[in-house]
Amino acid sequence: MSYDGFFRSELEALRQEGNYRTFAELERHCGDFPNATCHNGPGDVIIWCSNDYLGMGQNAKVLTAMHEALDRSGAGAGGTRNISGNTHDHAMLEAELADLHDKDAALLFTSGYVANWAALGTLASRIPDCVVLSDALNHASMIEGIRHSRAQKIIWKHNDLNDLEARLAELPTGQPKLIAFESVYSMDGDIAPITEICELADRYGAMTYLDEVHAVGLYGPRGAGIAERDGVMDRVTVIEGTLGKAFGVVGGYITGSREMCDFVRSFASGFIFTTALPPSVAAGAAASIRHLKASNAERRRQQANVAEVRRRLDAMGLPHLDNPSHIIPVMVGDPLKCKYISDVLLKDFGIYIQPINYPTVAKGTERLRITPSPVHSTADINHLVHALETLWTRCELARRPVAA
Amino acid sequence: MSYDGFFRSELEALRQEGNYRTFAELERHCGDFPNATCHNGPGDVIIWCSNDYLGMGQNAKVLTAMHEALDRSGAGAGGTRNISGNTHDHAMLEAELADLHDKDAALLFTSGYVANWAALGTLASRIPDCVVLSDALNHASMIEGIRHSRAQKIIWKHNDLNDLEARLAELPTGQPKLIAFESVYSMDGDIAPITEICELADRYGAMTYLDEVHAVGLYGPRGAGIAERDGVMDRVTVIEGTLGKAFGVVGGYITGSREMCDFVRSFASGFIFTTALPPSVAAGAAASIRHLKASNAERRRQQANVAEVRRRLDAMGLPHLDNPSHIIPVMVGDPLKCKYISDVLLKDFGIYIQPINYPTVAKGTERLRITPSPVHSTADINHLVHALETLWTRCELARRPVAA
Ligand SMILES: Cc1ncc(COP(=O)(O)O)c(C=O)c1O
Ligand SMILES: Cc1ncc(COP(=O)(O)O)c(C=O)c1O
Repeated sequence: MSYDGFFRSELEALRQEGNYRTFAELERHCGDFPNATCHNGPGDVIIWCSNDYLGMGQNAKVLTAMHEALDRSGAGAGGTRNISGNTHDHAMLEAELADLHDKDAALLFTSGYVANWAALGTLASRIPDCVVLSDALNHASMIEGIRHSRAQKIIWKHNDLNDLEARLAELPTGQPKLIAFESVYSMDGDIAPITEICELADRYGAMTYLDEVHAVGLYGPRGAGIAERDGVMDRVTVIEGTLGKAFGVVGGYITGSREMCDFVRSFASGFIFTTALPPSVAAGAAASIRHLKASNAERRRQQANVAEVRRRLDAMGLPHLDNPSHIIPVMVGDPLKCKYISDVLLKDFGIYIQPINYPTVAKGTERLRITPSPVHSTADINHLVHALETLWTRCELARRPVAA
Repeated sequence: MSYDGFFRSELEALRQEGNYRTFAELERHCGDFPNATCHNGPGDVIIWCSNDYLGMGQNAKVLTAMHEALDRSGAGAGGTRNISGNTHDHAMLEAELADLHDKDAALLFTSGYVANWAALGTLASRIPDCVVLSDALNHASMIEGIRHSRAQKIIWKHNDLNDLEARLAELPTGQPKLIAFESVYSMDGDIAPITEICELADRYGAMTYLDEVHAVGLYGPRGAGIAERDGVMDRVTVIEGTLGKAFGVVGGYITGSREMCDFVRSFASGFIFTTALPPSVAAGAAASIRHLKASNAERRRQQANVAEVRRRLDAMGLPHLDNPSHIIPVMVGDPLKCKYISDVLLKDFGIYIQPINYPTVAKGTERLRITPSPVHSTADINHLVHALETLWTRCELARRPVAA
């Protein structure tokens, strides 16, 4: 068998479908984000699809904390958490995270992906006879964790309480249950009814596992996420989050009871057998969390910019998903067209919005996912709207009726 | 069911076995490594179990590159590689890695763990009818990747060419095969016969997947690992490595043909659905690789220190595994005793060597794993040897006969 021949033909199939991915090669300019240089594109661009939702990647406190930790402790952790890689900065960050979510304890992972994979994989496989009730639109990392556990898995209709309750009601009372879901779904931007899910969990004796990856830093008075905003953090068994999106650095975590965190710490392969995050990353993330606990300015300005972009899109009849979050999915529904629009935005307008195609979203729901941030200016918004307007006209793309 | 009650009882069982882990909380002093502060121990300690094997975590070029990248581009990448998180620093690092291993291409992951899990998981699941031949002592991350693929799996006896050949010979000629193994096994420090394995692979039409996590930076004229030392890099299909051990930062990668890397890039969930490493991490790792490509000083001094520690242990009859690598496993063979010795070394001598217990090694093979580095001084070695001597006498631990 020619292995490279096989790889080539699979890649060719992706290309035919329009699902072959080319990465924009960016260089962000610290202090000047969302501006960046696109090395394999037109040079200067404005980024409109970053998950550094609040621009914390260029926050002075975050950068100072990272510089200081580099000077103090060096580049890497030098080992796994167990073998010489557990630093004071990790301990401080875990304390900060537990405090953020008002939980007993927190546990760090190298990413949000690994947090989901390792924590769900460990809980669902080690709790005897555990059944996982998983929202149909859960993120790949949760799906992989559940799959890894080989526990019984029941998929309930996305954000559908009736379906969830029907599934719970069918299960034996004594069987351990874990309801896994997200707060803000990153591609549609819709938000789960956390309170009602917790009520069902209580009624049926289930644990709840909530991915707040696209909500931490962004919602709630201290930026702990939707569960904080809704006043139900104490009712969620496991809150999972990332340090790589609104907090602007990298890494992931879970928070919950001391026992639960200690259990995952003690048994999760994906936690145990890997080099710990660098102390500078931990210090930077802790500084970011501390800042966003106290400051609402970034969140307020972000929300204002999100509302403004939505209003302007509506005024032109541009089809975007209505949702109550900070994510604006402009729907295209075709991978080739989606890529074409994105290419023209980049080339002719210096606007970088990556086309979102399969496997990130279902085929036929391809989109441009716009994430306005507090560091986009009014001029940036005008430029974006003008570019989309021009492009929609030029390409004769479908519009929605515009209210009179 | 009381979930926390279940977690508590499982943790209690670990404690009873002596396998409950307590992490030393360290603060490394940049420029003064292997010295550190142990926040939950005696204060000043010397680290003797770090995987920052060459002290590159405090190399000036690495730190300068990281500081500069922080100033230039900010803290995080701000997205997945596909969605706004692909930076110039990632592209440069991948080019550096491909050059290091003399391959067409390289692909970065958030860690060596994720590299193994994602690459093996993707290759073994997507190549139709692929069978994986896995060395019996492969790392947890490889095991999880293979398990994840749900491909047929055959475990061959550790480093045993006869057994590997017997397994290969039993398989149908046309069936795709992947031989997965490591170069330096991190807990025993033994080294695989890579050339001979590649010969078997050629004879039976198999791909080879080689984990060089404990060898990159350390072996070969440019620090590309054992396959470089042995002159067989071009014969290995996939070389996997970490940026978190000898290179002193964090992250993982694979290298190989352009098609293979592009295939994994396009299909691996663990690559696609996660925030990219920070630009500063990529820049620091690239600086480290570049330095170790050109400099043999760190490797030479490390090897001299390893030989010296071995010689001194032999002179006292301390039982350590003979192996041809930089890893010195002093065998204890009991989890409680191993932890006790480690505790006394820390408390009475300021020497930090984490006890290695189950599940990192098999029960009954508990050990102290010593990793001498170029930054340990002669005084450090004298102090270590004196402490072990004192402790072995005080605790009446077994010795080996000492040559006259
Ligand atoms: C819902 C969700 N969970 C988890 C992750 C993974 O987090 P991280 O990027 O920190 O790996 C992502 C995206 O990357 C996500 O969208
Ligand atoms: C053989 C081996 N492979 C892979 C890994 C994982 O690499 P990383 O620490 O970069 O996740 C480790 C240790 O951590 C290892 O010992």
